[in-house]
Amino acid sequence: MQGKVRASVALDNKRTEIREFDFPAIPSDGGLLKVEKTGVCGSDWPYFLNYPKSKGPLILGHETVGFVSAAGANAAARWGVKEGDRVALEEYLPCGHCNYCRTGDFRLCDATDTLLGNGIRYGSTPVSVAPSLWGGYSEYQYLHPNAVFHKVPAGVPAEQATLALPLGNGVEWAYLQGRASIGEAVVIQGPGQQGLACVIAAKEAGASCIIVTGLSADQHRLALAKEMGAHYTIDIEQNDLLESVADHTGGHMADLVIDCASGGPSTIVSAIHVARKGGRVLLCGRKGRPVPEFDSDLLFRKNLTVKGMRGHSYQAVEIALQILASGRYPLNKMCTHTFSLDQLENALCTVGGEGERNAIHCCVDPWR
Amino acid sequence: MQGKVRASVALDNKRTEIREFDFPAIPSDGGLLKVEKTGVCGSDWPYFLNYPKSKGPLILGHETVGFVSAAGANAAARWGVKEGDRVALEEYLPCGHCNYCRTGDFRLCDATDTLLGNGIRYGSTPVSVAPSLWGGYSEYQYLHPNAVFHKVPAGVPAEQATLALPLGNGVEWAYLQGRASIGEAVVIQGPGQQGLACVIAAKEAGASCIIVTGLSADQHRLALAKEMGAHYTIDIEQNDLLESVADHTGGHMADLVIDCASGGPSTIVSAIHVARKGGRVLLCGRKGRPVPEFDSDLLFRKNLTVKGMRGHSYQAVEIALQILASGRYPLNKMCTHTFSLDQLENALCTVGGEGERNAIHCCVDPWR
Amino acid sequence: MQGKVRASVALDNKRTEIREFDFPAIPSDGGLLKVEKTGVCGSDWPYFLNYPKSKGPLILGHETVGFVSAAGANAAARWGVKEGDRVALEEYLPCGHCNYCRTGDFRLCDATDTLLGNGIRYGSTPVSVAPSLWGGYSEYQYLHPNAVFHKVPAGVPAEQATLALPLGNGVEWAYLQGRASIGEAVVIQGPGQQGLACVIAAKEAGASCIIVTGLSADQHRLALAKEMGAHYTIDIEQNDLLESVADHTGGHMADLVIDCASGGPSTIVSAIHVARKGGRVLLCGRKGRPVPEFDSDLLFRKNLTVKGMRGHSYQAVEIALQILASGRYPLNKMCTHTFSLDQLENALCTVGGEGERNAIHCCVDPWR
Amino acid sequence: MQGKVRASVALDNKRTEIREFDFPAIPSDGGLLKVEKTGVCGSDWPYFLNYPKSKGPLILGHETVGFVSAAGANAAARWGVKEGDRVALEEYLPCGHCNYCRTGDFRLCDATDTLLGNGIRYGSTPVSVAPSLWGGYSEYQYLHPNAVFHKVPAGVPAEQATLALPLGNGVEWAYLQGRASIGEAVVIQGPGQQGLACVIAAKEAGASCIIVTGLSADQHRLALAKEMGAHYTIDIEQNDLLESVADHTGGHMADLVIDCASGGPSTIVSAIHVARKGGRVLLCGRKGRPVPEFDSDLLFRKNLTVKGMRGHSYQAVEIALQILASGRYPLNKMCTHTFSLDQLENALCTVGGEGERNAIHCCVDPWR
Repeated sequence: MQGKVRASVALDNKRTEIREFDFPAIPSDGGLLKVEKTGVCGSDWPYFLNYPKSKGPLILGHETVGFVSAAGANAAARWGVKEGDRVALEEYLPCGHCNYCRTGDFRLCDATDTLLGNGIRYGSTPVSVAPSLWGGYSEYQYLHPNAVFHKVPAGVPAEQATLALPLGNGVEWAYLQGRASIGEAVVIQGPGQQGLACVIAAKEAGASCIIVTGLSADQHRLALAKEMGAHYTIDIEQNDLLESVADHTGGHMADLVIDCASGGPSTIVSAIHVARKGGRVLLCGRKGRPVPEFDSDLLFRKNLTVKGMRGHSYQAVEIALQILASGRYPLNKMCTHTFSLDQLENALCTVGGEGERNAIHCCVDPWR
Repeated sequence: MQGKVRASVALDNKRTEIREFDFPAIPSDGGLLKVEKTGVCGSDWPYFLNYPKSKGPLILGHETVGFVSAAGANAAARWGVKEGDRVALEEYLPCGHCNYCRTGDFRLCDATDTLLGNGIRYGSTPVSVAPSLWGGYSEYQYLHPNAVFHKVPAGVPAEQATLALPLGNGVEWAYLQGRASIGEAVVIQGPGQQGLACVIAAKEAGASCIIVTGLSADQHRLALAKEMGAHYTIDIEQNDLLESVADHTGGHMADLVIDCASGGPSTIVSAIHVARKGGRVLLCGRKGRPVPEFDSDLLFRKNLTVKGMRGHSYQAVEIALQILASGRYPLNKMCTHTFSLDQLENALCTVGGEGERNAIHCCVDPWR
Repeated sequence: MQGKVRASVALDNKRTEIREFDFPAIPSDGGLLKVEKTGVCGSDWPYFLNYPKSKGPLILGHETVGFVSAAGANAAARWGVKEGDRVALEEYLPCGHCNYCRTGDFRLCDATDTLLGNGIRYGSTPVSVAPSLWGGYSEYQYLHPNAVFHKVPAGVPAEQATLALPLGNGVEWAYLQGRASIGEAVVIQGPGQQGLACVIAAKEAGASCIIVTGLSADQHRLALAKEMGAHYTIDIEQNDLLESVADHTGGHMADLVIDCASGGPSTIVSAIHVARKGGRVLLCGRKGRPVPEFDSDLLFRKNLTVKGMRGHSYQAVEIALQILASGRYPLNKMCTHTFSLDQLENALCTVGGEGERNAIHCCVDPWR
Repeated sequence: MQGKVRASVALDNKRTEIREFDFPAIPSDGGLLKVEKTGVCGSDWPYFLNYPKSKGPLILGHETVGFVSAAGANAAARWGVKEGDRVALEEYLPCGHCNYCRTGDFRLCDATDTLLGNGIRYGSTPVSVAPSLWGGYSEYQYLHPNAVFHKVPAGVPAEQATLALPLGNGVEWAYLQGRASIGEAVVIQGPGQQGLACVIAAKEAGASCIIVTGLSADQHRLALAKEMGAHYTIDIEQNDLLESVADHTGGHMADLVIDCASGGPSTIVSAIHVARKGGRVLLCGRKGRPVPEFDSDLLFRKNLTVKGMRGHSYQAVEIALQILASGRYPLNKMCTHTFSLDQLENALCTVGGEGERNAIHCCVDPWR
C-alpha cells in the first residue's frame, strides 16, 4: 500500500502524539485491518499512566472494529475471514497450542498475558515491537497470525460494535462465570459501561431482581441502568446498602454480586456482606491496593464463592454480538462520545474521570 | 428407660463436669441414640472457649456414632432406620422444607445455622433447650425429628467410624467443591485430620501430584500424609513454599489449593500465590481476624476462584463411609487417642493444642 | 370437621362417579387441604384408561392448588406452612431420607415412584389406601406427612396457579436439564401445554431462536406459542421440518430439541435429525411403543446427548411460580376450560383428545 | 530430503500395497513427522472396507507417535514443538477458528469431520489429496498446519505411546463425559482396547465397582480387565446380566454404563436396562443398523441420559499420556501385536476379527 498510517502514540505523562508509520509488509500468515472505530476501555487509563514508562511508546486501544484490508496467502483460511469482511478483534493473541488455548481458555494463554507474563496483545504492546501497529487508535492495525476474529453484522453501527468486548465481558462475568439464573437476585456495584453490560447479561439470563448501586454523581448512569433492565438502583451515599438490598429482595439478599466499581477496595467488603449464604461474588475491577478489612471467616461462614474475573471467552463475545444485532437494548444511549485521533488525550482522560463528564462508552474514530 | 444418662457438660473456663440427666420422653417423631463413640472436632475448641459463656452449659460433641435405641411411632419410617441400627449422625438438624433443604444443600438451612442464625444442631445447643441431650459426649443423644442418619457398616471400628464427618468434609472440599481431578496438582496446607482427609479425597479423585505443607513440628503428621497418598510434603519453615511447589509441579503450580491450616491468615495469602492461573483456592479454616495483606487484584490477574468451605453434603458423608469401609487407607493410624467422659477436658485441650502431643483424630468413649 | 367430602372417583371404562367420603382423622404429622382448583395433566388420560383397572377406583388429579385447612401438631413446623396458607402441592410424596431425597432429586425417590416401583403419589393412589383422599378432583385432599408444598402468591388466579407443575416441567426440561442458553436455537415439538411451558422457559433463559412445531390442526396453539415468545412456528404437515429449521437458524440447526409431542415415536427420529452436532435432545412424552427406526449411530456421529425427562425439581416449581406471579406472559390464554366435578369425564376426555376442542390447559373447580 | 517415503496404501477388497512417495516440499506452515509406530484402531476396519471404494486409495492409520523431522519457518512457533521432539498426533485437523475450535471442542470442527462432512483428517484422507502422506502406516507423515500435537515422555515405549488416543477416548468417555465418580458403579460392555481404556479411566476416577462384560471367547480380555482394575467381570453367555449387576451392586444397578461392544445393537438395549434410575449411558460403538427394540419410554421412566460418544478432547489425551507415563497400569499386556508395513493386511484383519487371535492393541512399525 502507498502512503503512511496515521496513529496516536501514547507517551509519558498523559501525553499522546500523532505519528505516521509505514504500511507493514504483509507476511503469508499475517494481514492488515482498516480500523473503523475503537472503543476506549476503562483499562486504557492505567495503561496510559503506566505503560509508556514501563514499556515505551505504544498505540493503545484494543476494542477495535474494522475491515480486513489485507490477508497473507495462508492467513485467510486460518482466520476464517477474507478481505473486506467487517470484524471485531479480541485483544488477545494466543499461541493456539497450549493447554489454555486447546481447552477454550485462550485468554489465559501466557503468550498474550501482559499482566503476569511477557506476552503481547493488542493495545498494550510498544511500537518498538515490529511492525508497531498493535493498537486501535490508528488508521490501520496489524493482523498478527494469532488474532481472534468475530464477524460483525452490517447493521450494527460502528460505535455500538465497539461494545463487543465490554459487552462480552458482561456476558462472561454475569452469565458464563457468574451463572446468573432465571429468578435470581443480582447486585451490580458500579454503573459504568461494565456494570451496564452486566445488567444486560443478567437480564438476558432471566434474573428477576437486578439491582445497580452507584454514587450520587452517577444519577444518569443509574437511570440508564433502569433503561437497560435493572429493577432497582441504589445511591449508596443516600441509602444503607444492606437494608436496601434486603428490602428489594424480601430479605433473601443477593444470589450473585458483581463488583464493577472503580475506586478503593471498600466495595469488595460490601459485596461480601450483600451476598446471601451460599452466594457468588465476582471481583471485576482492579483496586491497586490490599483490602485490609478482608474477613476470610465471612467467606467460610457464608459458604461464599469469590471469583476474580479477567476478560472474556470467545463464546461471550459471540453472544454479545448477537445481543448487539438484536436491537433489544438502547445501546445507542451508552455511546456518549466519539473522539478523533487528535483528541485521544481527552478520550483517555475522560475514562479516567478527568475529562468530559457523563461519559459512559467512548470511542475513537481515526478517520474523523 | 430406667436410670440416668451420664454426660460431660462444658462449663465456663475450659471446664467440664459430669452430670446425670433423666432419660427423655420419646415423642412420636423423635428417638434416642446409644452413643458408641464420638469424634472430637477441631471446632470443638472454639466452641469450648465461647459457647458456655454465650449460650450456657452444653454437651459438646457432634461426630457421633451409635445405635438407635428408641424411635417413636412416626420416626422410624421417616428416618429410614430402625431400633438397633448402627448409624453416624450429621451435626445438622435441618428443617426439611426450605429452599436449601429441598435442593440438597441442607447444611445451609437457617434452622440448623449456629454461626449466622439462631438454629440448633448437635454439639452446640445448650442443655437449657429440652431435652438437653444434644451432644455426643454423653451415653445417649436425643434423636430430633430432623436428624440426618447414615448407616455404618458393621466392620468399621467405632473410632474410625467417627471419622465419617471429617472425612466427609475432605470429600466435600477436595472433591465435590474443589473438583480435584485426574492428573491435577493439589496443595493442601495443614496436615491435621482435615488436611489428611483432603489427601484421601484428592487421592481417590486421581490427583497425580498431592503436596501437603506443614511446620517443622508436624513431622509425624507429614509422614502420615505420605502414607495416605501424598506425593510430596513441604516443611514451610525449612523451605520456600513457592519454589518447592514450582519444583514438584514442573512450574505448573497448583490447580487446587486447600487451606486447612489453623493459626493466622498468612496461609490464605500463600494459598493465593501458590495457585496457578485459573486455579481454585478453598478456605477451610476459621482465622478469627481479617487478612490485611489480602490482594484482590491477584484474584483478578490470576483469574482465581476462592471458596469458603463449610461442612459437608449428604453425598460426601456417604462417600466417606464407603472409603472407610474399603480399608484402602491406614485410617487406624489417624486415630491416635480415645478419652473417657471424665477426660473430656484433656480431649478438648488436646485438639486445641494444649493437651496430649502428636494427636490427630481423637474420640470419646462414654462407656469407658 | 362435619359433613362429607365430595369427590369424583375414576372407575373403569372412561367412567367417573361422584362419591362422598368422611373427613379423615388428622394425625399429628398430617393435615387436610381445601382444594381451590386442580389442573388436568396430559398424564391423567393414560392414568384414566389404566389405573382404575390395575389399581382400583381412585381420585385422579395432581396439579392442586388450595388452602391448608388443618395441620397436625407436628406437621406445620415440618412443612413450613400453617393453616390458611395458599399452596400448590407437588404430586410426589418422597420418603425424605434416601439418597435421591437428600441430594435434591426427590422426584426419583422409590417411595413415590408409581411407574417403576410401588410408591404412592397424589393423583395415582387408589381410594383403597386410607384415607382415600389422594387426588385433586375432590373438595379436600389429604396432606400426607411427606407432602411437598409451595407458597402461592395471593394475586395469581387459581386456574393459572394450577400451571405451577406443568410450567415447572417446562422450567425443568428446557432450562435446568436442557440448559437452554442465551443466544441458542431451541426447537420444541408439540404445542400443547407442556410445549408452551417450554417456550416460556426457553424465552426466560434468553434463547434467541425458539421454533415450535405442530400439525395443521394446531394453528391456534401455534399462534399462542408466538404470543408466549416463540420466534417461528412450523406446520410439519405443510413444510419440510429440516429445511425449515435450517432456514430459521441459518444452517446451524438446533442446539436443543425438546420432544413434547404426543402420538407415535416418529418425533423422536425427527428430533435427532434436527439437532446440531453436539446438540441436546430431550424426550418428554410417553410413546407407548418402541422406536424401530432409532439409529444409535446418529447419536454417535453427531455426538448427541439424549435425555428422558421425568417431572420437575423443587427449584423448577419455585421458578415457575415466580414467572406466574410476574405477569410477563399471557397465561390466561392458556387456561381454556374449567370443569366441575360432575364434568370430570369430559375434562379427562378433553385432554385425551376426545372432548372439547381447542383446549390447552384445563382445570377442575370442585366447588362449582 | 533424499530418497522416497515407503508407505502401505489401502486399496479395494481388503488389499494393501507398498508404495513409494516423494518427500513432500515443506511449506512455511507445514512439516514432516518421522513415524515411530502407529496404533491400529478399531475404526480402521470399517475404513478399510469402505474408504478405498468411496474415496480412493489411502494411507490408513491415525494413532501415530513419531519425531518431528521438519517444520516450516512459521510452523514450529505455531505448533509449540520443534524438530526432534517426540510427539503423538491427534487424528483431527481442525480449522482453529470456528465456534467448536474456539471453545475447546475442535473434534467437532467441520473441517475435520469425515463422517458428517467433507473434512480431512489423518488416516482417512486419500492419497489423491496432496501431499498424499495422510496416514500413519508409512515411514513419514505430513504435518498439516492444523495438526494437533502432544509431547510424549521419553520413557514411554512406542507401542504403549500409540495408546495415547484410545486411552484418551477412555478418559473422555468414562471420565470427562461420563463423569465416573468416587464410589460409583460403572458397567463397561465390551472388553476390547476401548473397554479396557474405560476401565483405567474409571479406576482413576475412583469408581468403587467396575464391572466389565464380554462373551465366553473374551476370557483373556476379561482377565486383563481385572488386572487393569475391574472389580468384576461377567460372561454374558453364561450369566444373566441384570441379575449379576444387581448382585455386584447390592441392587443399586449402574450409575454409568459404557457400551464399547462391537456387534449388533442388542448391547444398547441391555445398557439401558442395566442403568439405575437417573443413570447415564454412553454409546461408544458404531452398530451399522437401527435398534428396533429401542424403548424411549424407558429413558423417560428411568430419567436416563444417553450420550453418543465421538473421539476425545485435548485434555483427555494429555491425561492419557500422564497415565501412560505413570506406569501404574500393566499396559504392556495390552500391546499384543506389532506388524510391519508388509503385514498391514493382517494387522487390519486382526482388528476386524479375521486375523490373529487374542489381539488387544496392535501397532505397526514402518521400520521393521
